[in-house]
Amino acid sequence: MSGTREIIKAAKAAAPILAAASPEVKNRALSAVAERLLSEQAAILSANREDMERARDTLGAVMADRLLLTPERVAGMSAGIRDAVALPDPVGRVLRRTERPNGLVVEKVAVPLGVIAIIYESRPNVTSDAAALALKAGSAVVLRGGKEAFRSNAAIVRAIRLGLSDAGLPPELVAFVEDTSRESAKELMEAEGLIDLLIPRGGAGLIRACMEHAKVPCIQTGTGICHIYVDARAKQDMALDIVENAKTSRPSVCNAEEVLLVHRDIAAEFLPKLRERLTDARAARGLVPVELRLDARAGAVIPGTAAGARDFDTEFLDYILAVAVVDGVQDAVAHIAAHSTGHSEAIVTEDAAAAEYFTRAVDSAAVYVNASTRFTDGGEFGLGCEMGISTQKLHARGPMGLEELTSYKYIVRGNGQTR
Amino acid sequence: MSGTREIIKAAKAAAPILAAASPEVKNRALSAVAERLLSEQAAILSANREDMERARDTLGAVMADRLLLTPERVAGMSAGIRDAVALPDPVGRVLRRTERPNGLVVEKVAVPLGVIAIIYESRPNVTSDAAALALKAGSAVVLRGGKEAFRSNAAIVRAIRLGLSDAGLPPELVAFVEDTSRESAKELMEAEGLIDLLIPRGGAGLIRACMEHAKVPCIQTGTGICHIYVDARAKQDMALDIVENAKTSRPSVCNAEEVLLVHRDIAAEFLPKLRERLTDARAARGLVPVELRLDARAGAVIPGTAAGARDFDTEFLDYILAVAVVDGVQDAVAHIAAHSTGHSEAIVTEDAAAAEYFTRAVDSAAVYVNASTRFTDGGEFGLGCEMGISTQKLHARGPMGLEELTSYKYIVRGNGQTR
Repeated sequence: MSGTREIIKAAKAAAPILAAASPEVKNRALSAVAERLLSEQAAILSANREDMERARDTLGAVMADRLLLTPERVAGMSAGIRDAVALPDPVGRVLRRTERPNGLVVEKVAVPLGVIAIIYESRPNVTSDAAALALKAGSAVVLRGGKEAFRSNAAIVRAIRLGLSDAGLPPELVAFVEDTSRESAKELMEAEGLIDLLIPRGGAGLIRACMEHAKVPCIQTGTGICHIYVDARAKQDMALDIVENAKTSRPSVCNAEEVLLVHRDIAAEFLPKLRERLTDARAARGLVPVELRLDARAGAVIPGTAAGARDFDTEFLDYILAVAVVDGVQDAVAHIAAHSTGHSEAIVTEDAAAAEYFTRAVDSAAVYVNASTRFTDGGEFGLGCEMGISTQKLHARGPMGLEELTSYKYIVRGNGQTR
Repeated sequence: MSGTREIIKAAKAAAPILAAASPEVKNRALSAVAERLLSEQAAILSANREDMERARDTLGAVMADRLLLTPERVAGMSAGIRDAVALPDPVGRVLRRTERPNGLVVEKVAVPLGVIAIIYESRPNVTSDAAALALKAGSAVVLRGGKEAFRSNAAIVRAIRLGLSDAGLPPELVAFVEDTSRESAKELMEAEGLIDLLIPRGGAGLIRACMEHAKVPCIQTGTGICHIYVDARAKQDMALDIVENAKTSRPSVCNAEEVLLVHRDIAAEFLPKLRERLTDARAARGLVPVELRLDARAGAVIPGTAAGARDFDTEFLDYILAVAVVDGVQDAVAHIAAHSTGHSEAIVTEDAAAAEYFTRAVDSAAVYVNASTRFTDGGEFGLGCEMGISTQKLHARGPMGLEELTSYKYIVRGNGQTR
């Protein structure tokens, strides 16, 4: 086992080779990696069985399913890498070009970041997804996964490295941190001069630790307390569809709805329909009913749990929805400003002025009019892929695609200009 | 005197008003600020006289000149703000627009960052320049200047705030930190959730402290160990012009040259010409001669001080140039990778392949072919202005203009889409 710092240094040393590689060389390497994931499938599945075995007593059913690999899932990982091959190369794009009066030609050109590090938790497919996107963006990658998936991740990395070697690129471009303790996460956060971008993908605790301790550039991802505001002039059937979709289609993800705000003028009409739709109708269809946690004004209209002090500041990631009645769009925006994590918020309304005000005033990565917050995703936004969803404002906001995984430099050509 | 945290909070609370302001409202306010700088000129000059008085015994001539304000310099500050009025508004630009197969229209739109904080040192004109750019970019600004310029800065901020009030905007948009101790800088670095971007403009110590301790997003600016590589196939007269300009036109700035690398094949011919040009010829013209600090190979060709261990890693900001002989463009790139701060580097050559290799392989904010490094500047690059020069790769690299002072969000419009 090599030390964490040594493997990061090796990745850094190899990075310029990849940075100078043509799109064709990178795509050939990614294709070789996709091949190797298939040809090494038996080793990957066997490593995964060991992980599953060890985790059996500690992981719940949902987490165990996230950890599990099957031949289909490995094939999906391989297909995901082929998808990355098909995406346009983000490196070398001329972002701006100016010819100055003195004859200097100033070009702003997209370049790789260098070394991208990712700290992530249980799902082993992140290992291949993240590596593929970083490599396509021309950067070496340092992967530090969770301990439950350690053997699976190690086997996937071995396959990726074999693919790189097949294509004549140094395997050090994909570094795998074998130490899964907090100490190694801290080493990554403090690897100044070696890591150009650190992306923590995990729970709120990990992200907070990065914000507090990281000395390397870091992007906050993921935490989503997403709001939907149903305006007085909403089509109420549309609102019910959107709310049910945003809450229940996949409650465990960051773009799921956690809070519903309802205009006071329609509360008496809309809230009983909401309750019927999310509880009784779902139970009748054999679906998990949603627990409603109601503020005092909503609780005066329909029965439900009274919301506690923290319920409007909690990412439930579960079949739970906090509901409040507000005085109108301004009040909704103020509530969101006070409680949102800046991920995704939606308004349902037919009132163009209310929609305009909402989209302008809500300061979140994605702001929707008449659509579910569940669309905040690189694929759904047309980026072709995604490395995570940034909830910060610097560098990247919202889904991070290949462009967001690059930097730029200025190339200035002259014929002897002095100043 | 209000507490630092309170004035940051007040700026944060006022920020949405500016964020929602139209380009016309912002420009009207900036024009009013430019007016007030002129009408309050007497108060500003009087405050500056007090600063000059107190600093008399401690500041050298260069620093005293940086601190000094005159009617012309105040008029220049006012004119600088009118220049900002004339620049295109960076907020509201649609950076990308996609209509998805499901009918969702996804727009990526430039938005203000929110609150921008700047820590800077002696020159009081930074106070008005930085405030004008931040306001134009739609953000509130927190200014924390140095103690030498305290009274000047306070008077300038008073004038700016009067201008904002004249235009009907809240004066809290420009916050002035009255505490000039390290403690207040630390408070800014730790104002999580209140400051969206912190820009340290100052010496290496300040920048290092920000990188180490900042919990808010931060952009590294300024330190420049800039290299010029004179290739075997350089036009040597052009090389001499560029080297002299980059070293001596303004040695105290970050885009000045600190290190010269010369191809071994021309060292015997070029170095004596260099010595003549930078030392004897300058002395004969009554100009400050440049002290050459030579590596062993350069020292074997011309007389000069032998370079010490740190001379190739020092930002001299003075009439001193470290000189080394290298084996060719690859060796030059390797030297730069080992010693550069990633600011600006240049190659002088007529060899297109060498130029191509250099621009591709050098990982700095600005890479030049046949021009002086002194052009790394927002105005010279056609950005119209600049808040500083970033030497990091995340968010902004090189001169930061108005676009680099904004973020973006996604606005997604649908008609009931669910996922």
